[in-house]
Amino acid sequence: MPVLVMKFGGTSVATVDKIKRAAKKVGVEVAKGYDVIVIVSAMSGETNKLVGFVNDTSPMCDAREYDAIVSSGENVTAGLMALTLQEMDVPARSWQGWQVPVKTTSAHSSARIEEIPTDNINAKFGEGMKVAVVAGFQGVSPEGRITTLGRGGSDTTAVAFAAAFEADRCDIYTDVDGVYTTDPRVTDKARKLDKIAFEEMLELASLGAKVLQTRSVELAMRYKVRLRVLSSFEEQSDEAGTLVCAEEEIMESNVVAGVAFSRDEAKMTLISVADRPGIAAAIFGPLAEAGVNVDMIVQNISEEGRTDMTFSCPIDQVKHAQKAMDEAKARDDINFHDLVADTDVAKVSIVGIGMRSHAGVAAKMFATLRDEGINIKVITTSEIKTSVLVDRKYMELAVQALHDAFELEKAA
Amino acid sequence: MPVLVMKFGGTSVATVDKIKRAAKKVGVEVAKGYDVIVIVSAMSGETNKLVGFVNDTSPMCDAREYDAIVSSGENVTAGLMALTLQEMDVPARSWQGWQVPVKTTSAHSSARIEEIPTDNINAKFGEGMKVAVVAGFQGVSPEGRITTLGRGGSDTTAVAFAAAFEADRCDIYTDVDGVYTTDPRVTDKARKLDKIAFEEMLELASLGAKVLQTRSVELAMRYKVRLRVLSSFEEQSDEAGTLVCAEEEIMESNVVAGVAFSRDEAKMTLISVADRPGIAAAIFGPLAEAGVNVDMIVQNISEEGRTDMTFSCPIDQVKHAQKAMDEAKARDDINFHDLVADTDVAKVSIVGIGMRSHAGVAAKMFATLRDEGINIKVITTSEIKTSVLVDRKYMELAVQALHDAFELEKAA
Repeated sequence: MPVLVMKFGGTSVATVDKIKRAAKKVGVEVAKGYDVIVIVSAMSGETNKLVGFVNDTSPMCDAREYDAIVSSGENVTAGLMALTLQEMDVPARSWQGWQVPVKTTSAHSSARIEEIPTDNINAKFGEGMKVAVVAGFQGVSPEGRITTLGRGGSDTTAVAFAAAFEADRCDIYTDVDGVYTTDPRVTDKARKLDKIAFEEMLELASLGAKVLQTRSVELAMRYKVRLRVLSSFEEQSDEAGTLVCAEEEIMESNVVAGVAFSRDEAKMTLISVADRPGIAAAIFGPLAEAGVNVDMIVQNISEEGRTDMTFSCPIDQVKHAQKAMDEAKARDDINFHDLVADTDVAKVSIVGIGMRSHAGVAAKMFATLRDEGINIKVITTSEIKTSVLVDRKYMELAVQALHDAFELEKAA
Repeated sequence: MPVLVMKFGGTSVATVDKIKRAAKKVGVEVAKGYDVIVIVSAMSGETNKLVGFVNDTSPMCDAREYDAIVSSGENVTAGLMALTLQEMDVPARSWQGWQVPVKTTSAHSSARIEEIPTDNINAKFGEGMKVAVVAGFQGVSPEGRITTLGRGGSDTTAVAFAAAFEADRCDIYTDVDGVYTTDPRVTDKARKLDKIAFEEMLELASLGAKVLQTRSVELAMRYKVRLRVLSSFEEQSDEAGTLVCAEEEIMESNVVAGVAFSRDEAKMTLISVADRPGIAAAIFGPLAEAGVNVDMIVQNISEEGRTDMTFSCPIDQVKHAQKAMDEAKARDDINFHDLVADTDVAKVSIVGIGMRSHAGVAAKMFATLRDEGINIKVITTSEIKTSVLVDRKYMELAVQALHDAFELEKAA
């Protein structure tokens, strides 16, 4: 039997009634002849409640206990989904991570899946079970302790099961009906994409489009798992939602697939750094150790042996960055005049695999922003994206202008 | 190191603050030199919430899924208790049933513990862990599915661990401060007992005193586990609460240890049953099959080959009993004139191991009730108890009169 993986997020299983609605969608796929693996999140709000208990108990806690606690929400949903399917006369049972077992590393709270043996579940499919309901987000370490994959990890669980069981497709049911050219709240011209390439989705996911967890897209790309994002609150069909797939599957596409943005950026500038070989390592080594996710880096032209070094990082890491730089200065590892943080910036990016073969895309982006009078503070580019930092107050305007300039409201 | 088992019920771990209070009591015992096994229930209300989800989903549900769902509350508390102890610098970790593993039968929702291997936890004690926090109420079946022991099963978990680890004592922390001669809400002369024999506790537990689950007392008696019931909201000391122990440990005791009662009784009378050999089997066989828990049985003297047969059962089983009797009559298995249900009765019992060696205890009970003008409807006796059915409106009066007559307000 072909296997289909269906994943339902927290809002899709928030109540007993919503679980029933999700189960009906599973029933439709079973009727088509699929053996289905359903991955469920905790009812929305449950995981936050459990995390709240942990924070009230022990803010700097033993991650092994954290995992044992916060994983329990998914166990409840898995059992309820199995019962709901049984009520519909669909043979189903639940599996907790350790029962499969979903073997992970011991990196508690951010474990990585290492292996998913298929024999237990396949044996049950062989006995007539039609649906295996698996608690997402969790696994078991080599030591037999419960692990979790980090927030949003149920997407990763779903893709990993799709890879292990060689599923036809991995359908991610969520509260939006697909991937858009940009956030529809910023421009009503935003258009739902029918298909998007893994690489594009990966850039969009890591740039702040919160539809899919970045790791799940990486995993899907590596194992060529066809991933579909669709709404659990609308009619389902094989064409609904957005298919994330290899670029070979996409016949025609716009040069730019989408415009992404992120409000939570800060620009940090080290003024008058002594410029010498190894200075970059001396700056970014301590930042990495302090857990600062440095994104963009710009180094000005050096004058008289001194330069300005600018980088961006998430706004909530500014204090960590400042502390790390002050300590490095105190150790005489680096020498700078001042560290200036600009927390009123936002990042806007255009993404598209077509940028590989089309010249002038970045230039068109810069011209569009210039025509709107928006000053670009930092630029970075990769093969399939160009990102700029702008003043935060211009963010929406920049997104709208770029969406228009690249005619994203029109399908290819 | 000597081992102590401490069990905290749902009201004792209802909030993060209450868990902290309970953890302090654990810390006191660790400081005395004990290796402690803590058994926790779910936060009060949690299990009912989960059962509610199940009932909304599938009222006649797959008990395996029911168990997987309702066991999750204990996992949360176990993790939070372990974290709380760690915050107090007490080395602790949590164990879910399958991790120990607590091996049970496959009788889901009412599984029995078959074996608790001690090697995993003892190995951790050997490495310096001071407290193993175990999720109560749950285990794992030979098939690797999660099982539960039935409501109140955490008491049984606690006693089973105490037996397996040969603990010095099993302390059951609850919301009352011990076992009383009777319910203090019925008479303010009710006195807390310092000690009570297993046999007496067993009768009291099964007669409706809700302090301890019956099965846990049976298990404690069989394995000679010294069981102590005490309040989690009062100062602890080695003398607090009530010790449930072998009668040899009790030097002096009253003839009657306590007065128990149960409101939820019904008296059923089969009028004019054809009296013949095998008639009792023909009546009580079908009742047992219908799941009716028959308690007391009285058969009147037979006249002209017909007799009246009276039995008592829990009030919520009256309809099942009536159906079973009507069906047996329809099959011609039994023949009776009428079945009369009296649902306005209550059971009052006196319990005491002293009754074995003291004559006239039952007679004194009957005389006491007669003096209060209370009519006795049915009587049963065992070696250490005498129970009567009376009109429900006289129940409190009967309990008060018996408490006075046997001078239970005075210690032996």
